[in-house]
Amino acid sequence: MSELRKDPIIGRWVIIASERGKRPTDFLNLIEEKKETFSPFAPGNENMTPPEIFAIRPNHTPKDTPGWTLRVVPNKYPALRVEGQLNPRGEGLYDMMNGIGAHEVIIETPDPNRKLEELDISAIHDVVRTYKERILDLKKDIRLKYIMIFKNHGHLAGATLRHAHSQLIATPVIPKRVVEELNGSRAYFNLKERCIFCDIIRQEMRDNVRIAFEEEYFIALEPFAARVPFETWILPKAHISHFEMIDENLLRHLALTLKTVLQKLNVALQSPPYNYLIHTTPTREDALPYYHWHIELMPKLTNVAGFEWGSGFYINPTPPEDAARFLKEISI
Amino acid sequence: MSELRKDPIIGRWVIIASERGKRPTDFLNLIEEKKETFSPFAPGNENMTPPEIFAIRPNHTPKDTPGWTLRVVPNKYPALRVEGQLNPRGEGLYDMMNGIGAHEVIIETPDPNRKLEELDISAIHDVVRTYKERILDLKKDIRLKYIMIFKNHGHLAGATLRHAHSQLIATPVIPKRVVEELNGSRAYFNLKERCIFCDIIRQEMRDNVRIAFEEEYFIALEPFAARVPFETWILPKAHISHFEMIDENLLRHLALTLKTVLQKLNVALQSPPYNYLIHTTPTREDALPYYHWHIELMPKLTNVAGFEWGSGFYINPTPPEDAARFLKEISI
Repeated sequence: MSELRKDPIIGRWVIIASERGKRPTDFLNLIEEKKETFSPFAPGNENMTPPEIFAIRPNHTPKDTPGWTLRVVPNKYPALRVEGQLNPRGEGLYDMMNGIGAHEVIIETPDPNRKLEELDISAIHDVVRTYKERILDLKKDIRLKYIMIFKNHGHLAGATLRHAHSQLIATPVIPKRVVEELNGSRAYFNLKERCIFCDIIRQEMRDNVRIAFEEEYFIALEPFAARVPFETWILPKAHISHFEMIDENLLRHLALTLKTVLQKLNVALQSPPYNYLIHTTPTREDALPYYHWHIELMPKLTNVAGFEWGSGFYINPTPPEDAARFLKEISI
Repeated sequence: MSELRKDPIIGRWVIIASERGKRPTDFLNLIEEKKETFSPFAPGNENMTPPEIFAIRPNHTPKDTPGWTLRVVPNKYPALRVEGQLNPRGEGLYDMMNGIGAHEVIIETPDPNRKLEELDISAIHDVVRTYKERILDLKKDIRLKYIMIFKNHGHLAGATLRHAHSQLIATPVIPKRVVEELNGSRAYFNLKERCIFCDIIRQEMRDNVRIAFEEEYFIALEPFAARVPFETWILPKAHISHFEMIDENLLRHLALTLKTVLQKLNVALQSPPYNYLIHTTPTREDALPYYHWHIELMPKLTNVAGFEWGSGFYINPTPPEDAARFLKEISI
């Protein structure tokens, strides 16, 4: 079983996923991209993944057979597992617990060669609706404090398979970056009685210099203190703290916004590798007046270097205003 | 002039280095390694860098000519500059200031083809002594709150040139990761009246399962909550809060430890790209009983993916105990 370990100095948790069994020699050439031709996620290879948790099957074909348009399976090499006990414990000044949680893969399309943003709006709508459904299902397990949805596209962005997929990791502790956002936005609310994300949206709509795309319900903007070139955040314009509280109409608009923003990035940067992730409120919290779910999207254009690692201080060579102007002008 | 901007939600500073002038098209193929044959840092090319700040010239050759064994120059494309005024200001809910600071390059050897760890101990001693001397010099500028020394080796670790070099960035704000370490270690000291780093060293020496290398004055260990495979910290065994308080004898032992650890990593992982950085106490602070300078060294073996970006939660497939056992057995 993997272990959750806490850094004793700054309190950052890491997952020591020894079940993945990486020996030193396994790393050689790991960073180089393999040219894959075979997809374990393709229809007909259902026996190569653990049994499915959920699937969309328009013709009602049986579980773990072809005929699906979207499929959710447990990760074959999970960082965390649902089975077992947390067993939090100490070892001298160190703290640890068992690697309890969930690690799922959302296979976005049966076609191994199509990217998420190349799918029809209705298929992307199915993907984001599945994000919501998986969160609602996993919320029933009270040991899970946080559920993070994320997507790695391209080898340099950490994807090990080319076939389009997102992932979900549910953790028994709230991740540090989320705690920081919750603390920061709570402090702002205590001072101003307003949601800082709502204030950012209002200021950005007024200034109109960092908006990459805008539609009725969503805004995509380059954050003022963007860490990397073309970092883009997608936020619902109306205040909503939990992603899983999103309704069908908003899900459809989210699908449209996500497709448009990804297509713009593909034109601007010749289909870069990218990561996106959903920041939402921890599962056990009620609706919060100060936190506002959003998507953070980062094209992978530069290598993170020693200064960034050591300082948490990013050097971004592209002003977000320049990136926004460039993205805004691209018509899809 | 570049700008320092603060994320309004979590308070993280970024440097928007627009002078580096990256347009969208500049990123295409940026991640791919260029096969360089020419080094602007090589002897004879002194006019390709800004005028030198410091050099070791055994035969007293003139400034900015060949004959040096180590040379310090300002970065030609600096993220921050010494000239100008900080001018902190707001823009609605956003905070920013001018990009005042320093950004220097320490060219470690005249030979464009030798790595730091391939140099003699005396040459590595010169490198670490130069780190100390540059910090002591820059400390005189009271606008600079923090001075970080770091090294990127290999393209995937963010190095843009192959010729062996380290860098120094001095900032007018204390970086977030350092603030977190200071806060964490201060809280521990308030509770226990002991330095947490000293306690970690004591526990590691007793447990003897995460030590990669040990000599009289320094210890190299795989941290309990290592973020990446083979992450290694080098710490002086005796408590010392500021790197620049290190004496000649300790500098020599540091050179030996650094050379040995890097050589072990090269054997274990076939000369991986790597980053290291020195975490030390902010320049304006007196000696602190709770903070302990150290080097954090990270081989670049895996790509940082969406989950790590979004959560600050790392998934490390190699238990530090396995990495330590492996490194310990390698004899140099």
